[in-house]
Amino acid sequence: MKITVWGENVHERKNPAVAAIYPDGMHNTIARLLASGLPGSEIATATLEQPDHGLDAARLDTTDVLLWWGHLAHHKVDDAVVEAIAQRVLDGMGLIVLHSAHLSKIFRRLMGTRCNLRWREADDRELLWTVAPQHPIAAGVPHPIVIPRHEMYGEYFDIPPPDEVVFISSFSGGEVFRSGCCFRRGKGRVFYFSPGHETYPIYHDPVIARVLCNAVGWAAPSPSPIDTRTSPNSPTGWFET
Amino acid sequence: MKITVWGENVHERKNPAVAAIYPDGMHNTIARLLASGLPGSEIATATLEQPDHGLDAARLDTTDVLLWWGHLAHHKVDDAVVEAIAQRVLDGMGLIVLHSAHLSKIFRRLMGTRCNLRWREADDRELLWTVAPQHPIAAGVPHPIVIPRHEMYGEYFDIPPPDEVVFISSFSGGEVFRSGCCFRRGKGRVFYFSPGHETYPIYHDPVIARVLCNAVGWAAPSPSPIDTRTSPNSPTGWFET
Amino acid sequence: MKITVWGENVHERKNPAVAAIYPDGMHNTIARLLASGLPGSEIATATLEQPDHGLDAARLDTTDVLLWWGHLAHHKVDDAVVEAIAQRVLDGMGLIVLHSAHLSKIFRRLMGTRCNLRWREADDRELLWTVAPQHPIAAGVPHPIVIPRHEMYGEYFDIPPPDEVVFISSFSGGEVFRSGCCFRRGKGRVFYFSPGHETYPIYHDPVIARVLCNAVGWAAPSPSPIDTRTSPNSPTGWFET
Amino acid sequence: MKITVWGENVHERKNPAVAAIYPDGMHNTIARLLASGLPGSEIATATLEQPDHGLDAARLDTTDVLLWWGHLAHHKVDDAVVEAIAQRVLDGMGLIVLHSAHLSKIFRRLMGTRCNLRWREADDRELLWTVAPQHPIAAGVPHPIVIPRHEMYGEYFDIPPPDEVVFISSFSGGEVFRSGCCFRRGKGRVFYFSPGHETYPIYHDPVIARVLCNAVGWAAPSPSPIDTRTSPNSPTGWFET
Repeated sequence: MKITVWGENVHERKNPAVAAIYPDGMHNTIARLLASGLPGSEIATATLEQPDHGLDAARLDTTDVLLWWGHLAHHKVDDAVVEAIAQRVLDGMGLIVLHSAHLSKIFRRLMGTRCNLRWREADDRELLWTVAPQHPIAAGVPHPIVIPRHEMYGEYFDIPPPDEVVFISSFSGGEVFRSGCCFRRGKGRVFYFSPGHETYPIYHDPVIARVLCNAVGWAAPSPSPIDTRTSPNSPTGWFET
Repeated sequence: MKITVWGENVHERKNPAVAAIYPDGMHNTIARLLASGLPGSEIATATLEQPDHGLDAARLDTTDVLLWWGHLAHHKVDDAVVEAIAQRVLDGMGLIVLHSAHLSKIFRRLMGTRCNLRWREADDRELLWTVAPQHPIAAGVPHPIVIPRHEMYGEYFDIPPPDEVVFISSFSGGEVFRSGCCFRRGKGRVFYFSPGHETYPIYHDPVIARVLCNAVGWAAPSPSPIDTRTSPNSPTGWFET
Repeated sequence: MKITVWGENVHERKNPAVAAIYPDGMHNTIARLLASGLPGSEIATATLEQPDHGLDAARLDTTDVLLWWGHLAHHKVDDAVVEAIAQRVLDGMGLIVLHSAHLSKIFRRLMGTRCNLRWREADDRELLWTVAPQHPIAAGVPHPIVIPRHEMYGEYFDIPPPDEVVFISSFSGGEVFRSGCCFRRGKGRVFYFSPGHETYPIYHDPVIARVLCNAVGWAAPSPSPIDTRTSPNSPTGWFET
Repeated sequence: MKITVWGENVHERKNPAVAAIYPDGMHNTIARLLASGLPGSEIATATLEQPDHGLDAARLDTTDVLLWWGHLAHHKVDDAVVEAIAQRVLDGMGLIVLHSAHLSKIFRRLMGTRCNLRWREADDRELLWTVAPQHPIAAGVPHPIVIPRHEMYGEYFDIPPPDEVVFISSFSGGEVFRSGCCFRRGKGRVFYFSPGHETYPIYHDPVIARVLCNAVGWAAPSPSPIDTRTSPNSPTGWFET
């Protein structure tokens, strides 16, 4: 399994509070948790400030699953890179979209909706309830998952009806949120997972790590002879030998 | 539209607190709110203690949508009546399953799962959040719907993945619940709606009334030439004139 | 109900065979069948060659449901008009996407996938089988719907898993196709319906007319207080009076 | 992985034509193909004529995935055994339902619908088209899968809307069928796969073998702390340590 963790890596360098939690960046913390939970995987990182944001064709062509965390700089991500990622997802690459990346270009491009939601930074307690106990992404996690303090993300979350909802969250203030959602798009799989605000040590939590490792396993490409890149004109009997 | 409201009608006669809220029974309160919201409809009621629980063949054959509220006496509902209702739903009759009827024989018969859930009677505040704003059952209702005090129903709710989730609730204690769920079964439609504990005046709330009227409209039968009662042996060309 | 029928109106003016079937354009034929099946509706048409393709803000703002037929000139549709339509759909306008409009900019914009499919022009017989007999779009139509000669559209059709599949087609050559698919996007509803190749008199068929009228009814906007155009910062207790 | 293959084993002993294809029974052929494709698995078989149909509590308790083929003798399967299987599925055991087992007691018990379909024995060619190329059950199979001669199974197939449709079939006579369908029920997963009529050597086909092995992998239990066997009364704060 070849995994690439993309991190915007802006908060970590501007905000000492975030740097205290993620001294070498959220992307490296996430890369380490995946390396620990998925031994044998090849794990790379990429960030906004690199050429092509670290995601040139060679990198994308050797990525099975891409994780994406962004927030402040969605608008700085080059449209051509976004489109290249979208095409790779449609060709089978898995994509894990994290927290504030709900407004990333790549997520909105693939969803077709606005992806807006309600939010509040007020140290709400978040509880994630599993609503698909048979789903591999929920394997081995407690019910509920407790996040003592987190940013509130609440409904209505403007996404297409997910193909599978794995987790639904509540917040102290009374809001609910579809916090773990699966989407199949083309030959690829997309998982949105909302925990991960930069000012809390969410990605140091072993339960969250378990969810991310599960999600990478779920999103891995599946071999298929189907090619969706063209609309083939198919004469009668084309499939017969 | 021909509507039948079935009420167990046990709490109302045993518990003065319930009788104070629903002096002539929950079924009659629900029947009145439907009559008010759906003028022109023919509305009947039926209760447990009647012969065939008020649901003989003649009644079922002239019912477009059946609403079902039960709690204490699920086990007293005759299996033959349950099966007759199930067959009618599969033939197109709409079914609205209310609150504690999640454990009714008819709901479990049609779902195939246990339909268990987590619960607590502790005056939690319930908030219902619309997660399908384009759905006719959510038409015209506030976001969120606020129920000041209610029994908590929480996940995991052991139902099949709903065809559409319209509402998700939170409770003061932190639980969430898929409180408005649509299921298509055979030629019929089933809507489960969780508000309605007998010790609170839920069915006097005009917003709840609006949801129930919307749900009846959504669950109304749709004409179809398809007959699911048999497995027809169909010789080649059977559909050609 | 305010309906706008958009037609590319290119084939009809270039190809005498098409003009023979649709002398005043497919859009006018479709507009007439809707007028006949949905009395009381206000029905307008719009075409590619008009300013803003006939879809300026005033027109879109007064359209409840938009039907879209295009084929040769997808690339000539202005991106700004496409985006305006997409925003209107997300705000609640219904959209019916017909036949070769599977590759229209507006459909691909809302789906996020490539929308490619397999095709053949060889006078295949198409049969549309209802797989959702309780769905209002299938109300009153025969099983199967028989189209004596039609262009083949076959799987794999690169769309997101539909929220509801209403019809699945077979073709003489052995292909299958999800020919009637429902999608909920934002506050709007989208129905894709594949019959309608320009060289066959599909839109003169009263059964197809019935499906289109049913679809318009299904896609009509539903009132909701939810606004998806922003991500509101919501202080604790924001929803309490 | 512990797999149990249940075979009715009636046709094979009554009909020489079937015995010629499956000399030691379909269940043993299926067991061998699984052993070949899933090395390291423990594979057992069970048949109708055994005590408890070979499915006593000890067997079910050590089964991760159960495959079920039945046809002539659905009515001879003991209701208590059916209910025991259903409870095990709801507790997490995978279930693969094959061909004519669409009318088995266990499938109808879990679906809640009639599960009727259209059928014909006339040597139709069946083509299975993948409509979920990213699904693990479709991994590595050709598009389409060609079955030269098979019994026709056609729509309307009276099942709940599947959680995922993997394959849709066409038949020479023009019918279509949702031939590979996934259902999540309780903590378990159910896959219905229609190929497998007893008079054709379907289970000797390596492509079909691949699908069955894929399906067993997909249906394997997933660990979850959720217990759906009760409706727990949960005092406020029950989940806090």
